[in-house]
Amino acid sequence: MSKNILIIGGDTRQLHMADYLENKGYCVAVYGLPATDRKNVADLKQAIKNTQIINLPLPLSKDGKYLFSVAPIKETIDEIIPKLNENHMVFAGMINKSIEKKLSSRAGKVIDYFGLEEVTVKNTVPTAQGIIKTIIDNVDYTINSSNCAVFGYGRVAKVTAKVLQSLGANVTVCARKKGDIASAEVNGFNGCLISDFISVADNFDFIINTVPSMVITREILLNVKNDCLIIDVASAPYGTDFAAAFELGINAVQCPSLPGKVAPKTAGKIIADAIIDILEEENHE
Amino acid sequence: MSKNILIIGGDTRQLHMADYLENKGYCVAVYGLPATDRKNVADLKQAIKNTQIINLPLPLSKDGKYLFSVAPIKETIDEIIPKLNENHMVFAGMINKSIEKKLSSRAGKVIDYFGLEEVTVKNTVPTAQGIIKTIIDNVDYTINSSNCAVFGYGRVAKVTAKVLQSLGANVTVCARKKGDIASAEVNGFNGCLISDFISVADNFDFIINTVPSMVITREILLNVKNDCLIIDVASAPYGTDFAAAFELGINAVQCPSLPGKVAPKTAGKIIADAIIDILEEENHE
Amino acid sequence: MSKNILIIGGDTRQLHMADYLENKGYCVAVYGLPATDRKNVADLKQAIKNTQIINLPLPLSKDGKYLFSVAPIKETIDEIIPKLNENHMVFAGMINKSIEKKLSSRAGKVIDYFGLEEVTVKNTVPTAQGIIKTIIDNVDYTINSSNCAVFGYGRVAKVTAKVLQSLGANVTVCARKKGDIASAEVNGFNGCLISDFISVADNFDFIINTVPSMVITREILLNVKNDCLIIDVASAPYGTDFAAAFELGINAVQCPSLPGKVAPKTAGKIIADAIIDILEEENHE
Amino acid sequence: MSKNILIIGGDTRQLHMADYLENKGYCVAVYGLPATDRKNVADLKQAIKNTQIINLPLPLSKDGKYLFSVAPIKETIDEIIPKLNENHMVFAGMINKSIEKKLSSRAGKVIDYFGLEEVTVKNTVPTAQGIIKTIIDNVDYTINSSNCAVFGYGRVAKVTAKVLQSLGANVTVCARKKGDIASAEVNGFNGCLISDFISVADNFDFIINTVPSMVITREILLNVKNDCLIIDVASAPYGTDFAAAFELGINAVQCPSLPGKVAPKTAGKIIADAIIDILEEENHE
Repeated sequence: MSKNILIIGGDTRQLHMADYLENKGYCVAVYGLPATDRKNVADLKQAIKNTQIINLPLPLSKDGKYLFSVAPIKETIDEIIPKLNENHMVFAGMINKSIEKKLSSRAGKVIDYFGLEEVTVKNTVPTAQGIIKTIIDNVDYTINSSNCAVFGYGRVAKVTAKVLQSLGANVTVCARKKGDIASAEVNGFNGCLISDFISVADNFDFIINTVPSMVITREILLNVKNDCLIIDVASAPYGTDFAAAFELGINAVQCPSLPGKVAPKTAGKIIADAIIDILEEENHE
Repeated sequence: MSKNILIIGGDTRQLHMADYLENKGYCVAVYGLPATDRKNVADLKQAIKNTQIINLPLPLSKDGKYLFSVAPIKETIDEIIPKLNENHMVFAGMINKSIEKKLSSRAGKVIDYFGLEEVTVKNTVPTAQGIIKTIIDNVDYTINSSNCAVFGYGRVAKVTAKVLQSLGANVTVCARKKGDIASAEVNGFNGCLISDFISVADNFDFIINTVPSMVITREILLNVKNDCLIIDVASAPYGTDFAAAFELGINAVQCPSLPGKVAPKTAGKIIADAIIDILEEENHE
Repeated sequence: MSKNILIIGGDTRQLHMADYLENKGYCVAVYGLPATDRKNVADLKQAIKNTQIINLPLPLSKDGKYLFSVAPIKETIDEIIPKLNENHMVFAGMINKSIEKKLSSRAGKVIDYFGLEEVTVKNTVPTAQGIIKTIIDNVDYTINSSNCAVFGYGRVAKVTAKVLQSLGANVTVCARKKGDIASAEVNGFNGCLISDFISVADNFDFIINTVPSMVITREILLNVKNDCLIIDVASAPYGTDFAAAFELGINAVQCPSLPGKVAPKTAGKIIADAIIDILEEENHE
Repeated sequence: MSKNILIIGGDTRQLHMADYLENKGYCVAVYGLPATDRKNVADLKQAIKNTQIINLPLPLSKDGKYLFSVAPIKETIDEIIPKLNENHMVFAGMINKSIEKKLSSRAGKVIDYFGLEEVTVKNTVPTAQGIIKTIIDNVDYTINSSNCAVFGYGRVAKVTAKVLQSLGANVTVCARKKGDIASAEVNGFNGCLISDFISVADNFDFIINTVPSMVITREILLNVKNDCLIIDVASAPYGTDFAAAFELGINAVQCPSLPGKVAPKTAGKIIADAIIDILEEENHE
């Protein structure tokens, strides 16, 4: 497989991907990205024809019609797809079902890099950094010595709890399962069943939620300190009753997609590394 | 449910369990344990009759005939089981199938505390301490600055890797799945696919194995340093070719059941806490 | 000694001090601070007359004539000092020599809380948080996996190096003395003599300086990466050749007084705790 | 300066030093050490005559007459010293005053490697490992979740407190100065003035002392738990009332010279590195 890659659309992450891939020996062309030292290719049709590996943005599209990009792309997705053929290997992030169907009907291989285990795991690091930034920007005290609760004990929660603890916070992990509580305690955190949280809610300076279903309810919000900060990093439908928080004057912040916002260079590298890995395995087969 | 518990057989852990349960408000009688300040009950039949909650050893039995105990018990398991009735709640550890069948046919409830998530998770801590002890006892250098490999990335491996790292070791996690490698790297460890290990095997001062299938093969043993220490804490059938290690003069140590050996008080407390949890839930129902 | 305190001038820290002292049972009056729920006293002369413990700002003054305050104070220092008498205990921060002489000639006791060991030690924590914030705000990658150098190995440097390491950075401590290098290595950092730094300067993503004398010289700046970030938190005369950095297009940030900026609530608490400690010892004598 | 070194006397550490120095390119001869693959030189007089760099044991002597060695040396110190001349550079550890005077009157340079800052700092690591070993060997619970007190906040105490904390212990640093308490708290430990310790003494599972003057007094021993473990690693005159501990049935362990006992290979390397450093500087001058 050739080492030519065409990157179409995206944001700063894709610009960083381009640089990183080039450093790794790939020959990179871009289209639909802000012009930097790197010029966009002039003729998209020709570029697609000449390149076997195509990288599309994350998310692939926001409106279902155009590719997502910070420098708007005039061609619609439906105009681009027919230019693909079975020799193409297409990478994209968060591809919705209907577009994936169309892509798969043309391209030889379609890979959603956003769903890869490696990418998910590595993205926990910039997510945790985004949470730290959000905390520091919203409070006037130190994370050290603060009391914080982390809801959930999945990948993001584990890394976040560990980072907060290493910064000197007194961390309580709130989960539904006793096994998770035991595991949190083994890692040096306090554990609290979500069902018991309401009775201790007023101990916390800030609460990080990673659970994508309603856990920071109005009842809990009624019991937290006035100046408690809520940071919700779960995916939709989130886990916080934002309407109640607004009404009660509680500062509740919704923080989706932190990696791309807080560390686009790292986020771009994570995607690029995953793509390189897949391409290298492809070559070994 | 009454707060009387009869503990039959076991080892130091059960003695510590007895003390701990008593401190938590339970009324504890023991049979078949070394006499300390606490006397054994004289009449086992009567004691079983009078007590609803019965605690049997971990493992329940080593020979399938007698209960395991450091102070031998003359009654066979087959003589004891008929004394149980449907009011009895029986706790035991590592119950084998055939005995469990017999127990369940008599007692109202039979619980293998060794299989509980909470117990497994909490036991990783004394296991890691046992590993640290085994290392210190077998090497003449510091864990700090040493190079060590941990095979596997399950519960025990995660806690062990973390403890070794916190003591200043340079830790490499060896796993089969890329997702585990990514996760290990996110936690600050080096990652290495098991299939790639042989080429770096001679970097390591010691290797901890947690994988219960052959991973530390003769080929790997041929490539480690002469004075490399191998510690295998996997359950049977272990993961080290011990015969090859012996033949090659490599120090390979099999370390089963570390919690009971290195920290029986903690191991007893872990079991007791799990039993208390179950009894309390029982009372709430 | 009475529990009345009069706080004159300052910034958000003094407002937080006022709240904190009140929570600790002190009766607090303020003058020259922004009006919040807490009203300023109307008559400064009368207030000083009625209160034994006077707290002045940090720094005491910026121009040598007026007390430093975010809400300007019309009375000059020379007008205020004569209102003090030997019953007054005066706390202030960074008092310059000439004003201290005048204060001491009137008040019974004058204490510079900024010079107290406890305050200096505790301020390292908000300083480190300010450094983390400055890094996150200035780079587009994660601190995790980054290469960073910390110049100096005093109080601030130690805490900063530890925090960066706990966030996953690869930290090199640069110091002049071999004992410091050894100590840094024992704590898990890389060590590098400042005299050897130039040869490895291009490895680093960011450099934190805590040394108050020229160490990040033009020669070093000529050797760092183009996008290396320099953060100088030393006190005057700092340790970075800022002119050279500007000329070379290197992003070099001067960060004095981080605690008050990034965590005024914590900074206020630190000062208040030190004052409470001194007052309590005073009472025990 | 030549790269020949003659090592006279000592223990396992000197054997490891010999190996390590050889790996670093030095030509090493030994005398008065147990014969291994490495043979002792036959003629001490001739060997001293031929070698410029002489390494003597740590401690230099236990009785003031003979060099300390695990394989007895028949020549007395007073017989050996006259064989030295001004070309000799002599390294030794814990040299007492009167012998140093004699050595200095003959040899060109005499260096006590035990007093070097680098050696002291690096030895804290094997010391901490020895403390961990001593704890594990003496208790039947895990360090994780235990309550421990560390007396003193010097080099050894800092490293020990950090290691215990990283193993999950709840660590309280006991010191005389408020600045040390503040510093301990900043590092995530609890702080307690030694003068206040008696009132909380019964909270602790074990106590590590690093202070070389009586701090673990009879009064304190009267207040600790029956099964509290005391580990004293201070240098003479230690800090524990061992007589009182014995009388009260408290397990108090005196642990001098841990590095050589628990990690002789590392201890040998530390000394060898310090010697190499000095020799290299010598060559640069």
